[in-house]
Amino acid sequence: MTTTSDVQIRELVALRAQATRDKDVDAAMSYFAEDIVSFDVVNPLQYSGSKAMRTRTGEWFSSFEGPIGYVNHELTVAAGEDVAFIHSLNQVDATRKDGQALKMWWRSTVCYRKIGGKWMVTHEHNSVPFDVETGKASLGLEP
Amino acid sequence: MTTTSDVQIRELVALRAQATRDKDVDAAMSYFAEDIVSFDVVNPLQYSGSKAMRTRTGEWFSSFEGPIGYVNHELTVAAGEDVAFIHSLNQVDATRKDGQALKMWWRSTVCYRKIGGKWMVTHEHNSVPFDVETGKASLGLEP
Repeated sequence: MTTTSDVQIRELVALRAQATRDKDVDAAMSYFAEDIVSFDVVNPLQYSGSKAMRTRTGEWFSSFEGPIGYVNHELTVAAGEDVAFIHSLNQVDATRKDGQALKMWWRSTVCYRKIGGKWMVTHEHNSVPFDVETGKASLGLEP
Repeated sequence: MTTTSDVQIRELVALRAQATRDKDVDAAMSYFAEDIVSFDVVNPLQYSGSKAMRTRTGEWFSSFEGPIGYVNHELTVAAGEDVAFIHSLNQVDATRKDGQALKMWWRSTVCYRKIGGKWMVTHEHNSVPFDVETGKASLGLEP
């Protein structure tokens, strides 16, 4: 593992968090690999390709009124020469366009490869667990 | 990325799949790092440490009658010198001890670090997405 890579990946995580707060789709998408495979919190089972991700990210951002309160907690970074991953518990605190407040935590894993000298996200996985008794997604869990 | 690492990681994935089919807790746990952080399909939000994982794995294995039908589909491997990750869509086809059939797909991301010359799983993330209309976990999705 390398210190340089560690610093670079932490910068990307910070950039992405700020892009989310600002609802800036271009900034959020700027280091997604074209062939990214994404497992999202909600259906479907997977998204393939940065085009599908861009649509999904834009829709999510525009479902909120004003900026999105967003923090990565318990961030862990493992960064080698050309492969890296991070995981964190993400907290969102925002107001939907219909006026409803959304406060929830989810689990996030983001995986990177260095492609042409640039770190790119080739995979990410965001989710909440579910309650086996009710079959419902657990949207009210806190660490 | 290195060919040797790629081969080593694919071997670990195959070992883990076989351990799952055989419901062999020791084999399944043999390369989990002590400080693993796991995001599981069901509650809670996260498991910390291999001890908690061992309990959870043992409970899951012993909830089935006979061997577990288990396959990793669409396996993607990214393996560097000392950091690696994989993602796949996992399919289980098994019979619960109460006689009920369990056939489902879930998304899996497994992250590795080379520690003391040995690849160890330091993080894994398994989940199903949920349906925003019903709030229910989507247990019937197929790729």
